[in-house]
Amino acid sequence: TEMTANGYVVCLEARPETIYVRLLLDSGKVDRPLLKADDQFERIQDMKAARAAFYAEADWTIHTDFLNPEEVAEEIENILEIMRRRSKNKRGQSVLSGVQSSSETEIESRSPNGPLIVKTSGGTYPVLFSKDLLGQLGLIIQSYLPETANRHLFIITDQQVAEQHGRKVMAALEQSGYKVTMAAVPAGEESKSLKQVSELYDWLRAERAERQDLIIALGGGVVGDLAGFVAATWLRGIPFIQVPTTLLAMVDSSVGGKTGVNLPQGKNLVGAFYQPRLVVADVTTLATLPDRARRSGWAEVIKHAVIPGADENERGALKRFARLEQYCDQLAAGEPEITAAILRESVAVKAGVVAVDERETGLRITLNYGHTFGHALEAASNYNQLLHGEGVAIGMYGVSLLSQKLGLCDAEFVERQRRLIERFGLPLSAPSGINANKALSALKLDKKSEAGSVRWILPLGIGKLEIRSDIPAQAVEEVLQKLLS
Amino acid sequence: TEMTANGYVVCLEARPETIYVRLLLDSGKVDRPLLKADDQFERIQDMKAARAAFYAEADWTIHTDFLNPEEVAEEIENILEIMRRRSKNKRGQSVLSGVQSSSETEIESRSPNGPLIVKTSGGTYPVLFSKDLLGQLGLIIQSYLPETANRHLFIITDQQVAEQHGRKVMAALEQSGYKVTMAAVPAGEESKSLKQVSELYDWLRAERAERQDLIIALGGGVVGDLAGFVAATWLRGIPFIQVPTTLLAMVDSSVGGKTGVNLPQGKNLVGAFYQPRLVVADVTTLATLPDRARRSGWAEVIKHAVIPGADENERGALKRFARLEQYCDQLAAGEPEITAAILRESVAVKAGVVAVDERETGLRITLNYGHTFGHALEAASNYNQLLHGEGVAIGMYGVSLLSQKLGLCDAEFVERQRRLIERFGLPLSAPSGINANKALSALKLDKKSEAGSVRWILPLGIGKLEIRSDIPAQAVEEVLQKLLS
Repeated sequence: TEMTANGYVVCLEARPETIYVRLLLDSGKVDRPLLKADDQFERIQDMKAARAAFYAEADWTIHTDFLNPEEVAEEIENILEIMRRRSKNKRGQSVLSGVQSSSETEIESRSPNGPLIVKTSGGTYPVLFSKDLLGQLGLIIQSYLPETANRHLFIITDQQVAEQHGRKVMAALEQSGYKVTMAAVPAGEESKSLKQVSELYDWLRAERAERQDLIIALGGGVVGDLAGFVAATWLRGIPFIQVPTTLLAMVDSSVGGKTGVNLPQGKNLVGAFYQPRLVVADVTTLATLPDRARRSGWAEVIKHAVIPGADENERGALKRFARLEQYCDQLAAGEPEITAAILRESVAVKAGVVAVDERETGLRITLNYGHTFGHALEAASNYNQLLHGEGVAIGMYGVSLLSQKLGLCDAEFVERQRRLIERFGLPLSAPSGINANKALSALKLDKKSEAGSVRWILPLGIGKLEIRSDIPAQAVEEVLQKLLS
Repeated sequence: TEMTANGYVVCLEARPETIYVRLLLDSGKVDRPLLKADDQFERIQDMKAARAAFYAEADWTIHTDFLNPEEVAEEIENILEIMRRRSKNKRGQSVLSGVQSSSETEIESRSPNGPLIVKTSGGTYPVLFSKDLLGQLGLIIQSYLPETANRHLFIITDQQVAEQHGRKVMAALEQSGYKVTMAAVPAGEESKSLKQVSELYDWLRAERAERQDLIIALGGGVVGDLAGFVAATWLRGIPFIQVPTTLLAMVDSSVGGKTGVNLPQGKNLVGAFYQPRLVVADVTTLATLPDRARRSGWAEVIKHAVIPGADENERGALKRFARLEQYCDQLAAGEPEITAAILRESVAVKAGVVAVDERETGLRITLNYGHTFGHALEAASNYNQLLHGEGVAIGMYGVSLLSQKLGLCDAEFVERQRRLIERFGLPLSAPSGINANKALSALKLDKKSEAGSVRWILPLGIGKLEIRSDIPAQAVEEVLQKLLS
């Protein structure tokens, strides 16, 4: 505690297995002075146990099992940066277009596979991006959530994902000594219902799920929202982790703590802000997605390259945007290393915003960029013609047109964003048959509306936004007509 | 911000109406130098608006409308004390029997009607105890939650409470210019169901409840738990306040943020930790309660006089216990001033515990004193022969017998607690017909159990507890037999 008063204490943690293997690799044989016991592996375990109380004093613990020394060093910089930012920047509401900062270069230099740290008032947790993580899931949970040892793990997934990855994940968890039970709901948005929630409660009760057990959301956004809500409300909240298997879930819904289900009268009307303890994004799973679903996910990545990060000027967004233009083909082809690195950078934007505004009272509204038109079109299509990302893509294009019409951005930005959307195979206009009046009336019902008025998130260019509520209905209608033609 | 770096900034806030009236009372006529405008009332409003941003920088705002200067001074002491405690005491888990402290005398000297401040990581809020508050509810909400101006208020209550207090509360709120809608569920535990939750969602949707609106829980524990859960999950959380009308709700369930509903398989299996923005306890409403229900509530007050506060030694509990012995007759007779003062002191114990352990991971378990046997007996009676407080009363007596049997407390404590329970008209043994085997099996299913083992909160005396999991089943069974005989 004296140490913490004058700075930060970061503990470099590793499982005994890792330490043993490292020592072995280091010296050819294990014989450090402190490790003279016959069974050196056991001795490491004992030493760790004896020091546990001291380790617990640390401000932050880095689990180094999967990191090389350079990555550990980067992670420390990373964490200190987050801590500095957190203590500096508490005025999320006014910082919309960003302040002067040189941190975007740091984002670039970070290890692409080191965990991204998300800090919110509801909890701090790492997000891992890499290939081939599902097969290591037991080791990962053991390493990051050691308090789950001997606990019961409850996987909530959908039937499609269960078929693709269920066996592998179960095996990986059981190999690490966990008791595991899995529930697979029907795939699709219909499972985000109170009826499904109620059935999962019955399942948890039948399996005697306790407060110290762990729920694992394995799947896309539907599963994540549903399982997260069940975790938030079972016994007033039990721990859960997100294991997203779709691009959209990796880049958006698995991070930030939004959970919820739909009512017949509207989407996400019921829910809770509840943060996961860990997010494990195995980019290998993306290969199993249908093309259209994978393409759809890039819309949110583009969004994170247009909106400014919580504490950066527009240069951060400009770099992200340029990198998407540069790597577009490799990303579309599913190259795993580049995908992991770009997703990590993209989610860092969301993590930064969520850190200063967990409950969407201020800055977090920027994450709805493109979503106002997007939601309206999704609603007008009865949610069965457009994927969410497609709606967002059309919405981003639409709101750039609106911005241009109001003289807030130039044609060059509109065109540059349009081309990137197109290159990722995303649509720029809604499929025929969507009713313009229905879309218009949906706009007036937007869930994020304040006292009935719509707040528009208008781009001024890459990395610069303006929030406005005074947009003439005429202009909105004209843009909507264009998106529907 | 420079000021906050070197200490605390406390803002003394009052509504323009209050300021105007005070100035008038102060000088006979309103003519302060800064207030030369023709319409001085309007001028006060303008000045307040202009200074709002500065006021917002304060660490804490005291709404002084209902306080006299002495009460304001006490409130400041109060807040600073809470802030100091919060920064000092973060080790809730190990502090069970309390540390040295002189603060119990401060609790005593505080204004009996000034608000009690509850601080949790989920929010800080005042709890008001007084008579005749329902008729002022509009003014109180305006004063403490000025951000609700022009918003829609949604009262959730039960049919019985609606009949007794509904018209008065509606009128008080409408008088203050609020739009008010009320839903009354059937009285009784059956309304704490997912079905009822779902119907309330439909009601909120039909009424277009938005994120900035306010839910008011008007009634006892059932209504508070139900309305709180609906508030926690509607649009991922909208603000709510508790207006408890039963003794049990005032002293226990309205403070601390536990919300939830039952499943057919068990009570409170579904829920959320979600703090209210304000608690308004009008002790006048207690007069309308049936005798048995009112008596039942005193069990939790006795509990708060046996368990130690979060940062006190046993002397605090000894004083509380002695005061209950002293004022027992006036309290049983419903004398409102004494009732308000004793309830405030009692809830302060719970508030202190919740402040260091919102989510029941450590110290908060002490609030379950008497509840282990209590819940088991309630369950064994199918929740229709024992009121919750009656179960707790029998449970406190039972666990004192268990403690004595294990040599942890003396006969004098057992007897002194027994007599106080009896003087409040509470039972010491369960009604005939409760099945001992059912109670025993319920003990093994206790929701708070960790990995299947029951944690007993054993009294060593007034203000001293010990948590043990290694209690022989034989001893438990013997006590249970005695409680059932």
